[in-house]
Amino acid sequence: MTDSAYQAAGIDYDRLDHFKRQCQHAARETIPQLAAHAAAEVPGARGESAYLIETEHEIWAHVEEGLGTKNLVADAVLGSVGPSAYHSIGIDLVATIVNDMITSGALPLVVAMHAAVGDVRWFDNVERAEQLAAGFAEGCRRSGAVWGGGETPALPGVVSEPAIVLGGSAIGRITPKERLIRGDVEDGDVMVCLASSGIHTNGLSLCRKLAAQMPQGFETKMTDGRTFGAALCVPSIIYVDFVKHCQHAGITLRYAVHMTGHGWRKVMRLAKPLVYRMQTIPPSPVLFEFIMQHGAIDLREAYATFNMGVGFVVMVRPEQVDLCVEMAHRCGVEAWIGGRVEATSGEKSVVLEPLGIEYDEQTLNLRD
Amino acid sequence: MTDSAYQAAGIDYDRLDHFKRQCQHAARETIPQLAAHAAAEVPGARGESAYLIETEHEIWAHVEEGLGTKNLVADAVLGSVGPSAYHSIGIDLVATIVNDMITSGALPLVVAMHAAVGDVRWFDNVERAEQLAAGFAEGCRRSGAVWGGGETPALPGVVSEPAIVLGGSAIGRITPKERLIRGDVEDGDVMVCLASSGIHTNGLSLCRKLAAQMPQGFETKMTDGRTFGAALCVPSIIYVDFVKHCQHAGITLRYAVHMTGHGWRKVMRLAKPLVYRMQTIPPSPVLFEFIMQHGAIDLREAYATFNMGVGFVVMVRPEQVDLCVEMAHRCGVEAWIGGRVEATSGEKSVVLEPLGIEYDEQTLNLRD
Repeated sequence: MTDSAYQAAGIDYDRLDHFKRQCQHAARETIPQLAAHAAAEVPGARGESAYLIETEHEIWAHVEEGLGTKNLVADAVLGSVGPSAYHSIGIDLVATIVNDMITSGALPLVVAMHAAVGDVRWFDNVERAEQLAAGFAEGCRRSGAVWGGGETPALPGVVSEPAIVLGGSAIGRITPKERLIRGDVEDGDVMVCLASSGIHTNGLSLCRKLAAQMPQGFETKMTDGRTFGAALCVPSIIYVDFVKHCQHAGITLRYAVHMTGHGWRKVMRLAKPLVYRMQTIPPSPVLFEFIMQHGAIDLREAYATFNMGVGFVVMVRPEQVDLCVEMAHRCGVEAWIGGRVEATSGEKSVVLEPLGIEYDEQTLNLRD
Repeated sequence: MTDSAYQAAGIDYDRLDHFKRQCQHAARETIPQLAAHAAAEVPGARGESAYLIETEHEIWAHVEEGLGTKNLVADAVLGSVGPSAYHSIGIDLVATIVNDMITSGALPLVVAMHAAVGDVRWFDNVERAEQLAAGFAEGCRRSGAVWGGGETPALPGVVSEPAIVLGGSAIGRITPKERLIRGDVEDGDVMVCLASSGIHTNGLSLCRKLAAQMPQGFETKMTDGRTFGAALCVPSIIYVDFVKHCQHAGITLRYAVHMTGHGWRKVMRLAKPLVYRMQTIPPSPVLFEFIMQHGAIDLREAYATFNMGVGFVVMVRPEQVDLCVEMAHRCGVEAWIGGRVEATSGEKSVVLEPLGIEYDEQTLNLRD
């Protein structure tokens, strides 16, 4: 598996990866600083979706995240979809932060927005700006978190003139500490898949490239009557409530995966040699069928790139799986038993059994 | 006082301010979410330099910040100063985050970097990238914090091609809770000024504009023999250690100001009617003399815009002032008794007594 789709979209991650390794090396050398705070890094948390430190009473989580380029799609469809496209962007921005955080078992308490523009005239479209703020607040509500602070710099010469760079961060907490999601997945554990609402925040550069190649661009109709652009602007599902419900129901989440970059390959993030055998895979949602068709992307590449209808995956013991699915339904999120985890004497892999697709561990070279 | 210098640099904050007010309004409505976490917002913390929540055992601080455009200066002088200019940028990025945080009394535990590029070829200059990472780690060390995680997206079409947007966030803690800096400043309190090392991270857009107007640009020599560009690239001082020393020495910091935007006007951030009478003002550092001369900026505007040699101001009771100055010296930071705080029946103001300058409260319309 090559990252050909990303490379086609103009992003070569090799150069970035080199810098990330430099950062990781330099960052590791600062770990001893925590001792003076009577705090310690949670083993294994470095490089995971949320950074975790343990203090006397609790475990605290920190996530720093960016939205990517989804807002460029919202800008492109502003005329047809309207300013509400930016309400979705606000929710998406919170979603991309908190859905990473909860993979640790931490519930977000505080979220902050970082919105950098190249030209303050970005804010002249008052409705768009209002929708962004309202959407971010709505995302915080759906996350059970407070919108704490933020930063809104004007950076002429750094940010492209008509654009906005959206990012943010969150503080979360695991209490009691036993709710830490440890990654202690074992042979026989079951994977519960939670539906996504659409593209979420991953693969948008590729989608913009596709739109640029279509005569009607984002206004191209899909088979369900929606336009491509409108479908892309459906806000991400926030899975905080689901994790909270599982915790309160006494379900031990052994591992959780926020399905973003690398598509379904991301399921095998853990280092240990396990086979993640997906046995129930619903038909591809219309949006992804559309993307595959127009991008000449086959199923193997599509499931390696997009969420393909699954936004969040958790792994639980078999005796807790029905309750886990019920908790998702109680939160209004479609969910199903996706498959099971098997021990292996060989390498780790993700097997999409109904599709005859297997991703071995060489296909996953995690960058985030 | 108008923000004419900023407007001349192409930044009109009015449009931004409107959006910020929208955000503040939307954010306030999410405050009730904290109750479910058995947490509460610290009264008065909203809109301050750090956002604070109180939990059972501690107070936690969250800061989200951006570097601004200082890295454009580092890029411009890369040829003469060398890649070490980006070591400074790394330190500056941490400094701008943690110096905000400590104004609450919180010490930073975890810092994260957000570095967004428009083109991954930014990282082709390997030395520059390495220096950025090394500088950020050094900033964390000087802050007594761990470098937790980060985010390094490639955002073609959003970030200008040759640029990088640098931001980040931090989690900090106030423990015991009594170390919260409350802003309970009273008549007779004394202001201790801590030296800056140079421009720090405020006013760089203006400096770039000045450089563009000079025949030799950033290579223009100043009276001390340094070039303008080299002087701008001196890394910010990090004041964490000073605050920590004060706490351990039992000094009650009643208020602390990180001198950034608005220059010395920022000293009157508190709402209450007080006169901040500065009585000792050292000569303007060479760098600021140079900026005033080349930008035709008078003293009144200069002190309203730049730090003018003072990076951090704390307010303490008179009986603790000598110990407070000693703590700064112990941390290797130049410090002196700057002046005193007086009650007033009128409006708040900052008086720079030796310079015959007074800023009344209408001159401060805080944006960050």
